[in-house]
Amino acid sequence: MSTRESDATRVGASFDAMWSQIEPIGRAPSGGYRRYAWNDADLQLREWFADAAGQRGLDVRTDRNANLWAWWLPGGDHGEHREPAGAFVTGSHVDSVPDGGAFDGPLGVVSALCAVDALRTAGVTPSKPVAVVVFADEEGARFGNACTGSRLTTGALDPDRARGLRDADGTSLAEAMRAAGFDPGDLGRDDETLRRIGVFVELHIEQGRALVDVDAPVGLATGIWPHGRWRFSFIGRADHAGTTRLADRRDPVLPFAATVLAARRHAEAQSALATFGRTTITPNATNGIASRVDAWLDARAEHQQVLDELVGAVVADAAAQAHDAGVTIETTVESLTPAVQFDSAVRARLASVLVAAPQLPTGAGHDAGVLAAEVPTGMVFVRNPSGVSHSPHEFAERADCLAGVDALAAVMQAWLEERG
Amino acid sequence: MSTRESDATRVGASFDAMWSQIEPIGRAPSGGYRRYAWNDADLQLREWFADAAGQRGLDVRTDRNANLWAWWLPGGDHGEHREPAGAFVTGSHVDSVPDGGAFDGPLGVVSALCAVDALRTAGVTPSKPVAVVVFADEEGARFGNACTGSRLTTGALDPDRARGLRDADGTSLAEAMRAAGFDPGDLGRDDETLRRIGVFVELHIEQGRALVDVDAPVGLATGIWPHGRWRFSFIGRADHAGTTRLADRRDPVLPFAATVLAARRHAEAQSALATFGRTTITPNATNGIASRVDAWLDARAEHQQVLDELVGAVVADAAAQAHDAGVTIETTVESLTPAVQFDSAVRARLASVLVAAPQLPTGAGHDAGVLAAEVPTGMVFVRNPSGVSHSPHEFAERADCLAGVDALAAVMQAWLEERG
Repeated sequence: MSTRESDATRVGASFDAMWSQIEPIGRAPSGGYRRYAWNDADLQLREWFADAAGQRGLDVRTDRNANLWAWWLPGGDHGEHREPAGAFVTGSHVDSVPDGGAFDGPLGVVSALCAVDALRTAGVTPSKPVAVVVFADEEGARFGNACTGSRLTTGALDPDRARGLRDADGTSLAEAMRAAGFDPGDLGRDDETLRRIGVFVELHIEQGRALVDVDAPVGLATGIWPHGRWRFSFIGRADHAGTTRLADRRDPVLPFAATVLAARRHAEAQSALATFGRTTITPNATNGIASRVDAWLDARAEHQQVLDELVGAVVADAAAQAHDAGVTIETTVESLTPAVQFDSAVRARLASVLVAAPQLPTGAGHDAGVLAAEVPTGMVFVRNPSGVSHSPHEFAERADCLAGVDALAAVMQAWLEERG
Repeated sequence: MSTRESDATRVGASFDAMWSQIEPIGRAPSGGYRRYAWNDADLQLREWFADAAGQRGLDVRTDRNANLWAWWLPGGDHGEHREPAGAFVTGSHVDSVPDGGAFDGPLGVVSALCAVDALRTAGVTPSKPVAVVVFADEEGARFGNACTGSRLTTGALDPDRARGLRDADGTSLAEAMRAAGFDPGDLGRDDETLRRIGVFVELHIEQGRALVDVDAPVGLATGIWPHGRWRFSFIGRADHAGTTRLADRRDPVLPFAATVLAARRHAEAQSALATFGRTTITPNATNGIASRVDAWLDARAEHQQVLDELVGAVVADAAAQAHDAGVTIETTVESLTPAVQFDSAVRARLASVLVAAPQLPTGAGHDAGVLAAEVPTGMVFVRNPSGVSHSPHEFAERADCLAGVDALAAVMQAWLEERG
């Protein structure tokens, strides 16, 4: 889509206005965001979205799984009497990881509303339904389960399991929803909502530096790498750090440390990713040898076979190191997400509109990855000059954000102009 | 001292009775003990001590620094009008590390009361003052400072600093003392108490396997190794574990892991001890690269020079590894305790009474190590067949405990029979 200069200025002003509204919400002294499912910041952002969509005359609804939808319907019909179907859907999420950045999630939501603004400014009236969606609890920061809203919708997450998830204070997801005035009794697979979606395109800040390296403001996702989480529990023996001879120790910190280095080595060899970012040491006393270390491996690779080989090699090294240290080891798969290939027709359609956009895979999970199992789905990435994500340093230039809006608007318009 | 069989039986019964009284106090479901300064378990044990001493007709006093004293004075004089001086003092502490064992501390207190019982059973009347002491807050589990009661007494710990120490809930030591009915206003160096001590002999469970290896139930301490705590802060950059290329990462967990292995390697090479038992990872998220790792090195060696070399080598390796990982590092000395040599005259006197007891150094800090700077001091160790300490698995056989009581009673009697 080409917009006149004054139209572009208007869309830029719309972006700036929304960005400045949400910027302070849930911001911690660190500069990072603490927008966790159903906390005050999350509720404020949900309210902000309903207001922003309402001001645009969009029809705001909450589905059974607490995802928010803002509908722009053909012929000014707000859909009270008619079911929207075959819709062009775009959006993302508004929650964050602990001390996360400003862009991961909100950029996709703000850009979606801006794309609607851009089409209206250009005088486009929708020939098919359009929706902007905010999926609930994407990051899983509070209840430990990622993509809760989209996984419930597709049935990938059992509603009883979801209701029973608990945060660090022992509050269940069901209790948190109820406290926020939402009835969790009707959670679960939502065929009615899925039927409405003709295509889902999620715009997201890139979480690496691939677009920086090829000097492109916007890219297209080919798919999501298979990935998973494995818990390594090293069980040793508590002992006095000042008196126990080295030879008499069963110190679980030693094989844990060796496993961290082994994981990095194997990931390098396989051109894959392996990270130990979470670890619990028991009892965690300065003058005590630990009795136990629980550590979580996050591993991702382009192909399932590579991922299997990588994790198998780390597990084997960990077992050998534990044995040498007189420590027992238990490894548990906590989650495993197979590879996602985004719909080839959607990818081709996006590529035909955004001809200059490079295509790249990603190692990160997204609601789009969950939806891809049920509906035609694609993703648009916006350049992140630092490559940093899940951090207060996450950043995108304003010009690149507006290029993202422009790309999304062009894609939306192309879909609306499509026959059938 | 040789006791008749019936006397020995009576002392054994006294030991068993006291042990069964304190055994349930502060015991956690893990089987370990949570007896932290001024918590309910600690207060119950202090009350138990006052009762047990009172039942023996000993004169119980609390000094300015909350240490408990039970006096057995010559001629039945309870000392209301006369200052005891040149006393034989024995005892230990009753608090524990988190999930600590039953013996570390309480064995010295119970054995001290049993030694008094043994001498009385044998018809001994004291020619000099005898005291059983319970030093406050030896482990430092709650407020992070070890040997608080003894260090305040010798002036090694500043009273304002002590009052301001805070536990994990933010409660200060002064507030905890006040809540327990103790006035913290008079904390500080206590010359009056130090003047009363002729000699201090602390009995303690061994915290390694040296006595097991030489098949001896009781041993004598030569001294305490120099030791200290160093904090290593590795500061990297938070990032997304699923998208950040390995080459772009600044992951502080990698140099931390390498430092753990380096510390072990250097400790082996130097016949010293090095332990990382406490670590905090920020933000500690499974799908996030950590921004920061704080890890505490506990290091001990027979000689100060060896300790300096060991820590210097670990710091150098940590700095090199951090540099390679693009991570900055800060190292801080948190505490440094120089070597303690127990008084040679006391050691010779103990060795002349306990002729079969092997002499050994220890890597662990004790109130006796603090007192040694001010008064003639020695230590008696009781065999620990597992060698395990600071753990629910810490253990001593009953027969060895009674051999410890016998040794302490023999030493006490020898001192009372000494001229001058």
